[in-house]
Amino acid sequence: MNRVEIRICGLGGQGVVLAGQILGRAGAYDGKNVVQTQSYGAEARGSAAKSEVIISDEPIGFPHVRKCDILVAMSQSALDTHLTDLKEDGILLVDRDLVKQIPKVKAAVHKLPATEAAERQLRSKMYANMVMLGALVKETKIVSKEAMEKAIVHTTKSDSTQPNLQALNIGLAL
Amino acid sequence: MNRVEIRICGLGGQGVVLAGQILGRAGAYDGKNVVQTQSYGAEARGSAAKSEVIISDEPIGFPHVRKCDILVAMSQSALDTHLTDLKEDGILLVDRDLVKQIPKVKAAVHKLPATEAAERQLRSKMYANMVMLGALVKETKIVSKEAMEKAIVHTTKSDSTQPNLQALNIGLAL
Repeated sequence: MNRVEIRICGLGGQGVVLAGQILGRAGAYDGKNVVQTQSYGAEARGSAAKSEVIISDEPIGFPHVRKCDILVAMSQSALDTHLTDLKEDGILLVDRDLVKQIPKVKAAVHKLPATEAAERQLRSKMYANMVMLGALVKETKIVSKEAMEKAIVHTTKSDSTQPNLQALNIGLAL
Repeated sequence: MNRVEIRICGLGGQGVVLAGQILGRAGAYDGKNVVQTQSYGAEARGSAAKSEVIISDEPIGFPHVRKCDILVAMSQSALDTHLTDLKEDGILLVDRDLVKQIPKVKAAVHKLPATEAAERQLRSKMYANMVMLGALVKETKIVSKEAMEKAIVHTTKSDSTQPNLQALNIGLAL
């Protein structure tokens, strides 16, 4: 695909912004053009959070996500808010531990036990975002695994780099 | 001011994206709503880089920078490209070591020796971005010094946190 528009949404504190930054950086490492946008409010923890990434082979003229090709939802309220912006032939990834009700859609739906896997294997649900990214990479191949690993190393604090890399691999194996 | 739109532009490798991320984060710490956008190309180093931040007391309905209130230019080509988007009553900050030709504008112009100060006091021009942010905070007070420091601590890698904090203070004193 020439231009892919991705929206990652959830609650503050879930690492939605970090996930978008890492995904965007990986796109650049793969030689693509990237626009990455993040919105956050005064009360970051627990309020709505959103991160958008456009990855394109060509220079990006209109740098805003309209209808998205891929929607990653990490809370029920985020899904309820953003599902309308997903293309009919798009791809929806939800954390099935956090999103219970998914309306009938034509898009391809992937329900992933990201929080459960992060808690079980890394003893912290804070890595659920990277598990979701791993699953996203596996399903869509929009960026390479190598670029994702490099982006994690360059973006995360040193004490969280290893668990984030593990979380990516858990997601790739889901 | 209720809504302030800031664009930071320069070349890849100058830390334009990091500067926008830190500024946006500081805005959130100050209790504001923030939208932060970054564009980068395949060849990050040496190519054009741009980072945009909107900081607002109110929820941000239209999340894109149109005419900006504040323009920070860290290369001549970046200034030449983006000056047209600065409001007439806006504020322009340029790194005077990198931007030599400034057209006549009505905006308030601040020429700062950011690269020179970073090289002289921190032995690396890579901190010029944070010197510019320090000067920006001093001139515009769009975010607090405390929020900037917290954002630097939470965003930068541990080995660069101290010099970035120093660079901020150098900029605040320029």
